[in-house]
Amino acid sequence: MEVDRNGLEVLDREECLRLLACATLGRVGLTSGALPMVLPVNFLLDEERILVRTGRGSKMEAALRDAVVAFEVDDFDSMDRSGWSVAVTGVASEVSTPAGLAAVRQMPIARWAPHGDEAVLAISTEIVSGRRITLGAQRASL
Amino acid sequence: MEVDRNGLEVLDREECLRLLACATLGRVGLTSGALPMVLPVNFLLDEERILVRTGRGSKMEAALRDAVVAFEVDDFDSMDRSGWSVAVTGVASEVSTPAGLAAVRQMPIARWAPHGDEAVLAISTEIVSGRRITLGAQRASL
Repeated sequence: MEVDRNGLEVLDREECLRLLACATLGRVGLTSGALPMVLPVNFLLDEERILVRTGRGSKMEAALRDAVVAFEVDDFDSMDRSGWSVAVTGVASEVSTPAGLAAVRQMPIARWAPHGDEAVLAISTEIVSGRRITLGAQRASL
Repeated sequence: MEVDRNGLEVLDREECLRLLACATLGRVGLTSGALPMVLPVNFLLDEERILVRTGRGSKMEAALRDAVVAFEVDDFDSMDRSGWSVAVTGVASEVSTPAGLAAVRQMPIARWAPHGDEAVLAISTEIVSGRRITLGAQRASL
């Protein structure tokens, strides 16, 4: 098992994608008005791309279109301080071709917000890294 | 109640800070090697600044030092699709004066990772925004 400088287990790309495939809520890092922001977003992993719905003309759509963006998903248990996180850096682009739109319309891309789901953006998974923390790892360091 | 274009309740600064004060795990948006990343991090809200521990010489320390960064905390219930999120944009700086270090040493800044907690960084809360989503809001939009 590979361990990083912080004592966390390093996850390989395959494991990271497996974890992304099981999640529906992530956070996207974007730049809006020259300032960095991190916002929560529902998503669906389709093969090796992350699909999100957003409102046409929204801050998120404007910030993500053809931009290099960061994406993160995690699942931690605060009681036993265990869990995992996956960080992705990729390029976001709008799904706009008729064939592309027809394909994603069949997919269950969640969207919890009541309004604003007209556009579908795809984020590539160029760089993927993941970490897992377990109670065992923490005890071993005491 | 103010509602945004996506149908989500808009939270004021006071409510956002109250929610931040109750949380211990957030996500920080930073730039490392010219690429954006979002990473999970433990934190403590001290008055109106966010305190995080990180390893001396780590990627996070290098990226956050004197940089404008994004920070995000949320708590969602995936069963009923309700919850809240708070997004912060501020300036990160290392707590390095003797008085500053003496003060933060008394504070319970969590750090789940086994290693790498030598440095303490403070992120100011210049820009704070928050949203809440409730099942009621979704039902009303159907």
